[in-house]
Amino acid sequence: MPSCSIVFLPLNKKVKVESGISLLEAAGHAGIIINSVCGGDGICGRCKMIVKSGKVKSMTSPLLTREEIQHGVVLACTTYVESDIVVEIPAETLAEEKIIVDRDAQRFRAFRSGITQRQFSKSPLVFKIFLKLDKPTLENNLADCQRIQRMIEKHAGISAMQTGLKILRQLPIVLRKNNFAVTAIIGQRRDVAELIDIERGNSAGRNYAAVVDVGTTTVIVHLIDVIKMTTIDAQACFNSQVIFGREVTARIIAGEKKGAAILQEKIIGDINRLISALALRNKVSLKDIIFVVCAGNTIMTHFLLGLPADNIRRNPYTAVSIEPSPFRAAETGIKVNPRGLLFCVPGIGSWVGGDITAGILATGLYERDDTAMLIDVGTNGEIVLGNREWMIACSASTGPALEGGGVKCGMTAEKGAIEKVYFEEEHLRYKTIGNGPPRGICGSGIIDLIAGLLAKGVIDRAGKFIQGSDPGLKRIGGIWRFMIAGKGKGRKGREVYITQDDIDNVITAKAAVFAAVKIMLDRLNLKISDVKKLFLAGGFGSYIDRRNAIRIGLLPDMPVSSIQYVGNTSIWGAKLAAFSYEAYNLMHEIRQKTTYYDLMGSPDYVEQFKLAMFLPHTNIELFPSFSESPAPDA
Amino acid sequence: MPSCSIVFLPLNKKVKVESGISLLEAAGHAGIIINSVCGGDGICGRCKMIVKSGKVKSMTSPLLTREEIQHGVVLACTTYVESDIVVEIPAETLAEEKIIVDRDAQRFRAFRSGITQRQFSKSPLVFKIFLKLDKPTLENNLADCQRIQRMIEKHAGISAMQTGLKILRQLPIVLRKNNFAVTAIIGQRRDVAELIDIERGNSAGRNYAAVVDVGTTTVIVHLIDVIKMTTIDAQACFNSQVIFGREVTARIIAGEKKGAAILQEKIIGDINRLISALALRNKVSLKDIIFVVCAGNTIMTHFLLGLPADNIRRNPYTAVSIEPSPFRAAETGIKVNPRGLLFCVPGIGSWVGGDITAGILATGLYERDDTAMLIDVGTNGEIVLGNREWMIACSASTGPALEGGGVKCGMTAEKGAIEKVYFEEEHLRYKTIGNGPPRGICGSGIIDLIAGLLAKGVIDRAGKFIQGSDPGLKRIGGIWRFMIAGKGKGRKGREVYITQDDIDNVITAKAAVFAAVKIMLDRLNLKISDVKKLFLAGGFGSYIDRRNAIRIGLLPDMPVSSIQYVGNTSIWGAKLAAFSYEAYNLMHEIRQKTTYYDLMGSPDYVEQFKLAMFLPHTNIELFPSFSESPAPDA
Repeated sequence: MPSCSIVFLPLNKKVKVESGISLLEAAGHAGIIINSVCGGDGICGRCKMIVKSGKVKSMTSPLLTREEIQHGVVLACTTYVESDIVVEIPAETLAEEKIIVDRDAQRFRAFRSGITQRQFSKSPLVFKIFLKLDKPTLENNLADCQRIQRMIEKHAGISAMQTGLKILRQLPIVLRKNNFAVTAIIGQRRDVAELIDIERGNSAGRNYAAVVDVGTTTVIVHLIDVIKMTTIDAQACFNSQVIFGREVTARIIAGEKKGAAILQEKIIGDINRLISALALRNKVSLKDIIFVVCAGNTIMTHFLLGLPADNIRRNPYTAVSIEPSPFRAAETGIKVNPRGLLFCVPGIGSWVGGDITAGILATGLYERDDTAMLIDVGTNGEIVLGNREWMIACSASTGPALEGGGVKCGMTAEKGAIEKVYFEEEHLRYKTIGNGPPRGICGSGIIDLIAGLLAKGVIDRAGKFIQGSDPGLKRIGGIWRFMIAGKGKGRKGREVYITQDDIDNVITAKAAVFAAVKIMLDRLNLKISDVKKLFLAGGFGSYIDRRNAIRIGLLPDMPVSSIQYVGNTSIWGAKLAAFSYEAYNLMHEIRQKTTYYDLMGSPDYVEQFKLAMFLPHTNIELFPSFSESPAPDA
Repeated sequence: MPSCSIVFLPLNKKVKVESGISLLEAAGHAGIIINSVCGGDGICGRCKMIVKSGKVKSMTSPLLTREEIQHGVVLACTTYVESDIVVEIPAETLAEEKIIVDRDAQRFRAFRSGITQRQFSKSPLVFKIFLKLDKPTLENNLADCQRIQRMIEKHAGISAMQTGLKILRQLPIVLRKNNFAVTAIIGQRRDVAELIDIERGNSAGRNYAAVVDVGTTTVIVHLIDVIKMTTIDAQACFNSQVIFGREVTARIIAGEKKGAAILQEKIIGDINRLISALALRNKVSLKDIIFVVCAGNTIMTHFLLGLPADNIRRNPYTAVSIEPSPFRAAETGIKVNPRGLLFCVPGIGSWVGGDITAGILATGLYERDDTAMLIDVGTNGEIVLGNREWMIACSASTGPALEGGGVKCGMTAEKGAIEKVYFEEEHLRYKTIGNGPPRGICGSGIIDLIAGLLAKGVIDRAGKFIQGSDPGLKRIGGIWRFMIAGKGKGRKGREVYITQDDIDNVITAKAAVFAAVKIMLDRLNLKISDVKKLFLAGGFGSYIDRRNAIRIGLLPDMPVSSIQYVGNTSIWGAKLAAFSYEAYNLMHEIRQKTTYYDLMGSPDYVEQFKLAMFLPHTNIELFPSFSESPAPDA
């Protein structure tokens, strides 16, 4: 093989390679990491390069426009070097190193739900079976499709199966080219199975799925190995719909004006970037990611599917669908196996979405004999109350303060986030995730901080700074702030502080949650002592100080031993469904069984909300553990 | 409104109309009948016209090519007159009057199967429900889709339902524009229902379906009213795939060379033409035809779906699928409601198709206590033998002689076909369908004729003309023919006769059928006397003379009282399925239960075939009723 010399611009990296190898491989030899994730399957279209001079052999691809092709743009994975060449790598093709790992990734490897540790049968929503079929003979000349179906029935007990025309048309060729040894991909749609695709040879060992928590503020993807039932890796990013507003209402309005597609594009872009990065880092081909399970609030699910969400924001707050059927992922623009399926976890109502159904499943609340409560705090706070007999759910708008958004130095619970704050002999101490220099503060840290400031008398019960109470309280540029981590000499990391606005945002958030809890209990004539277990879910950090959460009035005053921080139950529940059709079906039962209660229809919500705007509450008798606290100023 | 003057070329018809009306309506005012069948829905694309001069307002349509648009071609239904104009109507746009009515259309109106008159529950494969939904309130703000599903569950008992993204996206608008009074179209796919579409207001009274018998030689469409459970009309045409060969094998080879799409195009074109003509004649909008049920042999079903049929013609004769899932009709190019479904009746084996499954259902053979036989004679002859306990089916290649093809003056059983022939004191008499002048001879007439010629000694037992035996036997252009209807003075109609080649083709056909019957009986160690009932199906005519069918050896020698001519059971069975999901499911049970026996694997088929090449048979003892016949010449 003659050797060719390749120059990669603008990095100006040079490499000598054998003629005939792909540009993608050549870039690898040059030590350049590019965005390719499907490794030659030409699915992702993320390895674009521009051939400036020299000769290549390149396939045309529908992922390139005519104009791009005319300007020399190629996909590196399907372009082969034939001479000395000069290639330019566009900025977007170079892989970014900005990676956020979700800590829950490591936490929920186990294949069980909740406290009761219920075991589900292993039965992934999409699975593969390697089939060594008997070759047809005169005595057994069953049709190709029925031959496959019979074998699948034998192995998986699935009899009726939908099969698309595309698959049927390829079937006889694929079977005969591979000597009747093929891998069937079977999707378990609701109530019916689908023969999704037939792959050559034995690919049954490669079955990956993306499990997505579609949050208003944060989008988290876990890449799971469906065979081994493990979480391989996880990554999160902020939801880029934020350009249309932090609150869902602003985004719905943007969708009304500009069409639902514009919001869909943003969220699908985020999901695709996360999946791509995970696939690349873990050397998984996009083709082998054969399904996606998404859990999110009802509005995010609408945006994901390109559904108009207009009516959700207007009285009487009606969604298009809270239980969408499984679709082909490609129909929404998600780039995994082109025939892969997208499952959305069914929701409970317009403002209580699939993330909460997932939470009910994950915590096992639906099968408890005693009455329990699930509080999931994100950009909205959702509360579920119930047991095996009945369940009721509602939602309150909290804003993102408790997950690190809407707070100046706030951040999601990732490396460098201050996740724990406490005072030691008047000195403030903190601990960061990963124990490195601080980059910001996450939910659990914020709760600790406000509880500490209250106990120390730096803020009053209305959450207002008491000037002169502490040297950490400083006025910079006319705004008062309490310093957590300064920029002092020799100190690494960012300056981290909290402002009056930040504290007000946190109090608003916790008041919204508490008011909702109070109304739910009142409606059902229950006292907080009737609730035997409280699950706190959300992306606060790796753990939260339960006593501090009570002290600021986010949680009701109950024994801390009955409160359990359960992390991201949206991902956890969605993952259970991914691994088990039984769990997936159970989600649909849960959604049927859970009554949706709309706080918008509650006349006393505003009053209860106002009462909860103090620390811990206006009516201190609701918090007997802290009744020694000073009386409210107002 | 100003009035405009319109000239339609080449008819040179002029009309004055108000500005703003559509070209389609204007043509109506001018008394011109054109091919439009969807009446303004822009679905069919059959009302193309060319605007030569003047001003119109016209919508673009994906049914027109860029080139057509540049040349002034418009769809008359969506083009509105704005000035005096001159329009040319292409020949293909003018409606033809050539209509063939299938006589079975009138015959099988009843909603029952077979001899046993089993009643199926009425449950059409696709049905409509008019829903007057409660409007959402704060107390009941269920999502739009679940609101509809709950109502459908209440009315139709269907809980889980697939709903496509397209429908979901339109749902909130359609519901609110129509005050929550809409019509749901629900398709009963195998094991799962689909919410196919939502129409505004109450369209539940309009539910039509096309039931299609996809024959190798003849294609028949029945238009049915699903609400009234009646057959509105029927029409047939020859299968235009004939340009690739009369026999399926030649067509498979054409498909191998030129791709399956070319064969699909032909058959879909035939079906579309028939559906269009029926819709036009009966003033049914294509949009209201919401499903299509097709029954055909396995190869025709492959062609219909664009599946490669290559392996069916090669040992071991393997199909791609004999039980294809329901698809969207539009996926195959069938032009009915764009979201309408196509159901293919499941087949039994590579050479015994859905037309036979339909026949088993229609005749009730599958539920008989005694053993019965079904013989369906088309371009192939299929035989089913069995009872409620077991069934076995096979196929023999007959050629189209018995359905009027491959016979010089042969025709399908329609108006003008000689359907009955007999000799009265040496004179040949005949009767035509409709009693008008003869246009040709159909299957039942051919059987009568050959039986008559044999009895009269015009042909010998090998089927050869005995020269000088009858004045009707003439030599014209070097070829011997027996005249049935001449062109004599004052006589109307075509000259109708039969040639030696024609007779040879008929004998080949009947020998193929009889050999198959004989082998089936032998394999099961049965005698013909063990068969208590024989159903003869096929497009022979309105009835056949059973004794003559035995006399020529097409049917085995059994009491004529146990033989029943049942006409086109393919259409009959398919129609039962259209009306009843129960019947449709039963077809799948029937196909599972019926053993497919491949004659290609039978070592004695060729020998049995040769033995059956005499009239009625070489072994005259098989036909004791006719043992007084002269001994074979050979």
